[in-house]
Amino acid sequence: MVASSLSKNHAGATRLIEVRGGLGAVPGVKLAGVAAGIKKRKSDLAVVLLPGPHVCASVITTNEIKAAPLLVSEQHIAQSGEAMRAIVCNAGCANACTGERGERDARATARQAAALLKIEQTQVIVASTGVIGVYLPMDRVVKGLERAVKDLEEGMDSAYNAAEAIMTTDREPKLAAYAFYDGKERYVVGGIAKGSGMIAPNMATMLAFVVTNAPMSRASLLAELREATDASFNMISVDGDMSTNDSVYAFAPPGEEAAPAGFSDALRAVTRELAYAMVRDGEGATKALTVDVTSARDEAQARTIARACVNSNLVRTALYGEDPNWGRIIAAAGSVHAGLDPQTWSLYLNDHLWVDRGAIEVLSEAEGHRELENAAVHVRLDLGLGEAAATAWGCDLSRDYVRINASYRT
Amino acid sequence: MVASSLSKNHAGATRLIEVRGGLGAVPGVKLAGVAAGIKKRKSDLAVVLLPGPHVCASVITTNEIKAAPLLVSEQHIAQSGEAMRAIVCNAGCANACTGERGERDARATARQAAALLKIEQTQVIVASTGVIGVYLPMDRVVKGLERAVKDLEEGMDSAYNAAEAIMTTDREPKLAAYAFYDGKERYVVGGIAKGSGMIAPNMATMLAFVVTNAPMSRASLLAELREATDASFNMISVDGDMSTNDSVYAFAPPGEEAAPAGFSDALRAVTRELAYAMVRDGEGATKALTVDVTSARDEAQARTIARACVNSNLVRTALYGEDPNWGRIIAAAGSVHAGLDPQTWSLYLNDHLWVDRGAIEVLSEAEGHRELENAAVHVRLDLGLGEAAATAWGCDLSRDYVRINASYRT
Repeated sequence: MVASSLSKNHAGATRLIEVRGGLGAVPGVKLAGVAAGIKKRKSDLAVVLLPGPHVCASVITTNEIKAAPLLVSEQHIAQSGEAMRAIVCNAGCANACTGERGERDARATARQAAALLKIEQTQVIVASTGVIGVYLPMDRVVKGLERAVKDLEEGMDSAYNAAEAIMTTDREPKLAAYAFYDGKERYVVGGIAKGSGMIAPNMATMLAFVVTNAPMSRASLLAELREATDASFNMISVDGDMSTNDSVYAFAPPGEEAAPAGFSDALRAVTRELAYAMVRDGEGATKALTVDVTSARDEAQARTIARACVNSNLVRTALYGEDPNWGRIIAAAGSVHAGLDPQTWSLYLNDHLWVDRGAIEVLSEAEGHRELENAAVHVRLDLGLGEAAATAWGCDLSRDYVRINASYRT
Repeated sequence: MVASSLSKNHAGATRLIEVRGGLGAVPGVKLAGVAAGIKKRKSDLAVVLLPGPHVCASVITTNEIKAAPLLVSEQHIAQSGEAMRAIVCNAGCANACTGERGERDARATARQAAALLKIEQTQVIVASTGVIGVYLPMDRVVKGLERAVKDLEEGMDSAYNAAEAIMTTDREPKLAAYAFYDGKERYVVGGIAKGSGMIAPNMATMLAFVVTNAPMSRASLLAELREATDASFNMISVDGDMSTNDSVYAFAPPGEEAAPAGFSDALRAVTRELAYAMVRDGEGATKALTVDVTSARDEAQARTIARACVNSNLVRTALYGEDPNWGRIIAAAGSVHAGLDPQTWSLYLNDHLWVDRGAIEVLSEAEGHRELENAAVHVRLDLGLGEAAATAWGCDLSRDYVRINASYRT
């Protein structure tokens, strides 16, 4: 489901069709999710098998501390990036800050999966999410892999199982898929993701895996993935300052230089929907927040200010309290030195003019409060400076966020 | 009181003596704090009268939205910065995002105070803190000023009243004063401050007013204030990204080019103590956090990483939960691209080695938990890279923080 605040962003993509099943909607993709015992009593290990060799593109955390699976997967892509076959992802243990042993464990995971799937070790992407500084329980991983590989199946149910197995504090699995026609063929882009507390500076891990059956070159896939990530996952985090494990992987059958017409829109729709699902499922979140910054001088200004607004603890607590404290929004916007003009901005709340040109409150406090009672709140900050725009997504900061994070265990 | 984690920072300053009374410890300074009715049933208006013309230095917010009193006070300093006489500060209304009327109100406040004190309007610093986007109730301000000016007195009690009158969500007034000898004379540096939720990206307002009876030039005072602010108030916020109203004002009798020997240490002690009082009194805070970054390549690296650690919501919620989740500290340190080497860092908790060289946990989880039960927690991150160091201060993020900020009213 795409929220109304999102739908207008791909209004131009008339040939896009939302379909069910996430990764399971992509023909030939097999998935499984099992409880390997890494977490207590919950599924925690997902395997995805692609129908043949695929080109692979990644966008990974810029954190200087990168978890072992990211380092290993980057090496695998360097070797086999034109012919990847599988993904193994566990929850419950991040395998980060685990030194050389962590890298050995990540490599052993790929080797074991490859042996079971009868492919090469370097054709496997490994990913982990969970507690930092703990070693992977390799005996459980190995046994879990055996069961997961036996369970591999196409379709919506297995995609749901896989999406559940990569969850940490997520309340619900995250799947998205769109079909598109390039004039001749019908293609699908599908994905699964996890992440629920990632609005910076929180840096809880986000992972996303996206597969299409539309053929293209690896360079083309990488360019598309970077653009889509910048307009989605990077608009719920700040400046790529992410957790030790954040990563987005995309896969496509090897093909012509450019992606088929319609792919960009479908990929953007899938990544935006997964990103929005993360903020809707933000740790302890009771409300989703969409901030559009319009009439900006350039896109960089719009992006910086939009992210500052969704990232402010004071904005987020006011949202939780349904307190129409617009001063916090504008203070956040002004704090990032992006060239806000104190005289020209106007603020809109759910499409109602809220504050006109820098000072004049139009909505009464009671009206503002009533608008904030919505579970999905839409703020637009018109900078009055130019033509550029950007959108960022966030959620409120509740007491439950603190409860969840004050003692986080697997 | 200087906490133990602070005292070592001015171990070199053997001639420093901590004294009581904050601003009231400075000979000749008169103060008052009254309830003018800007807030409900609480004192909310402070007046400080200096004993004669003083040079004045300021460090104010870099937020692009600056409150009206900051703009007016900067104009006053430009005109009368060698001969300032008084401060008027109100709580309950920030007078920010109030346009031209806000500036007129700030000027009228200064004019009214000047008339009552028989000084020039431009000799008055005006400051405000509270809700953004609301006009000052000028009739109440005017009546409050009349009462405050009548109440002006020297000494500790009136300094306490003034410090109380500038509080918003602060639980206690913040005062600090140190005496020093330059070999011939005894001088005092005293200050009052407010601020309790200012760890970025929260941007709740901090205000500080510091006065000395040690004569110096305005240029010398400004240089000293900038250095002291960088090592104190700027180590509880991030990169000067502050609220619309943040400001620090310092005053000294006009004198020779350089400040007397000992002044730097005294000023640093006062500003550090006021800054630490703010984090100890952080909104909803149950614990204070000191992060020392040592063996850094340079001071900029140490400062950036220290601030990232105290600024992380995940570090702060783990502290609240007494959860020895050191992965969050190192993930925060790595997120700011300051050149952390994943192989060389070690972490210390309350002087116990916690994690050795990037991977090896030395303290058990039970031991870590026990150390975190302290109300003042001290973390040291040794980067293993060089000789530079920096200290940042923060507090935990509690459920009470959310309660306080979900509906903030005067």
